[in-house]
Amino acid sequence: MIGVYDSGYGGLTVLRALRAALPTHDFVYLGDSGRAPYGGRDTDTILDFAEQCVERLFEEGCPLVVVACHTVSCVALRHLQRRYGPGGALVGAATESDSAGATPRRILGVTIPAAEAAVAQSRGHIGVIGTARTVSSGTFATELAKLGPHRVTQRAAPLLAPIVEEGWEDSAIARLAVARYVAELGDIDTLVLGCTHYPLLRAAFEATLPEGVAILDPAPFVAARLSDWLDRHPGFVAPGTGTLRVLCTDPAGFRAHGERFLGEPLPVVAHVAEEGGRLAHKATVEVRLGQIVR
Amino acid sequence: MIGVYDSGYGGLTVLRALRAALPTHDFVYLGDSGRAPYGGRDTDTILDFAEQCVERLFEEGCPLVVVACHTVSCVALRHLQRRYGPGGALVGAATESDSAGATPRRILGVTIPAAEAAVAQSRGHIGVIGTARTVSSGTFATELAKLGPHRVTQRAAPLLAPIVEEGWEDSAIARLAVARYVAELGDIDTLVLGCTHYPLLRAAFEATLPEGVAILDPAPFVAARLSDWLDRHPGFVAPGTGTLRVLCTDPAGFRAHGERFLGEPLPVVAHVAEEGGRLAHKATVEVRLGQIVR
Repeated sequence: MIGVYDSGYGGLTVLRALRAALPTHDFVYLGDSGRAPYGGRDTDTILDFAEQCVERLFEEGCPLVVVACHTVSCVALRHLQRRYGPGGALVGAATESDSAGATPRRILGVTIPAAEAAVAQSRGHIGVIGTARTVSSGTFATELAKLGPHRVTQRAAPLLAPIVEEGWEDSAIARLAVARYVAELGDIDTLVLGCTHYPLLRAAFEATLPEGVAILDPAPFVAARLSDWLDRHPGFVAPGTGTLRVLCTDPAGFRAHGERFLGEPLPVVAHVAEEGGRLAHKATVEVRLGQIVR
Repeated sequence: MIGVYDSGYGGLTVLRALRAALPTHDFVYLGDSGRAPYGGRDTDTILDFAEQCVERLFEEGCPLVVVACHTVSCVALRHLQRRYGPGGALVGAATESDSAGATPRRILGVTIPAAEAAVAQSRGHIGVIGTARTVSSGTFATELAKLGPHRVTQRAAPLLAPIVEEGWEDSAIARLAVARYVAELGDIDTLVLGCTHYPLLRAAFEATLPEGVAILDPAPFVAARLSDWLDRHPGFVAPGTGTLRVLCTDPAGFRAHGERFLGEPLPVVAHVAEEGGRLAHKATVEVRLGQIVR
């Protein structure tokens, strides 16, 4: 099974691309929506939440975890890779109860696939929009700089995720806000949608961007890179049958929003309880789209 | 001196009303903008931040603190009053270095003055908009219910504070967002602006609300109640000369936003450092609108 971790339900837009590219793999998605958005939290808290979530996905039987959230990928991916990746402090030790103490773990993010796709496509000036935290982290700009001499213009777009969460993506408010942010990016030729909420605003971006400016949703490039990785590491993840499990820390939010992001009805959503700042080790309540099953 | 505590700079709209009503009093404003917004934080964290901030204001020599933020007032005021108020666990013990161990402290909020003003003015149906946390706390509805049989309709308006923080209050985006939220409030006759950012959107509210619907900015009612309280407790706060000191945890944010909220140029802003989740006990850096003075 492949784990997909997101701070909320935005990562369901990435999951959608992963499942389309790898239809016979089994996925477990963990959305920490009960503690989202992470943007206002301090860095130590984000690292702590990220550790809890990837450890839960390891416990669920996922040796490979994709961090689908751009904010977490920008702020915490290196930390997670150092802690759990090859040569990391906690290789195979993430779950004490795991008898296979030396099981290798891998964690992949979304920033590098997005940067590579942008550089492959741009004629010289790349725009990036994302959360304030993603932009202030500077991670996108750093990764882009490693790949070539492109000019990069970033802008935090703090209104866009709330617009999508209100379900207002097909409104004049959405089009005006997108237009205002885009106008500040200058003569870019490629726009990276650096937040998993923004693909739902694609129509607003298409209506706003000048002709010739490419809109880059990183999700399919993340999927292509994951697919390559699996080809290069045969046997790392056991083959599956295309199943999907969804875990979250806020079932009500998932019921309200999940389907729009995933693009299809959600399966049963398991509630991972959170208390005193820690995730429970086992799902305690199962929620079937509004109905609590004890 | 009178302390005014806010999670950021929104409370400067309340400070403005307090200084207008009490021009000879001295004020110290503490805006915790470096850790704002508080909305996404868990309750224990909000209580902890609030304790740190009011204790800092006690240290600055303010026996009386007004919590200007509606979110903090709804979530944490009772806790603060129990901890520091008359008969509280820590009356006069908030600052260990304070030799006057029995100094009485008082903490006042914005929710009850807002509820009283709404009930005094409404013909029967009160609308309240605020942050998601303010609305979900249920505190406004509870306080309104104590005062009369009015119908209350609440709506979280998560886009409005970010619109003001972007400086977009005089835009079509602001007017459309306000219109959309107001439309969901039904046939209210009084609208409580339950967030200190919203008075900057007054023009958008006026353009949107049907005739006969009163817009209620609680700030002047908070000021009137504070003035009454001071009359009833002569000598509690030493008289002053109308000075203002501003402390904050994020000078850059204050430089960008403070003046719009206060309605006049800010005085010197002192930076209160925050590290490892705690506020420093003394101002370490003084910032004069952009210029760092060491």
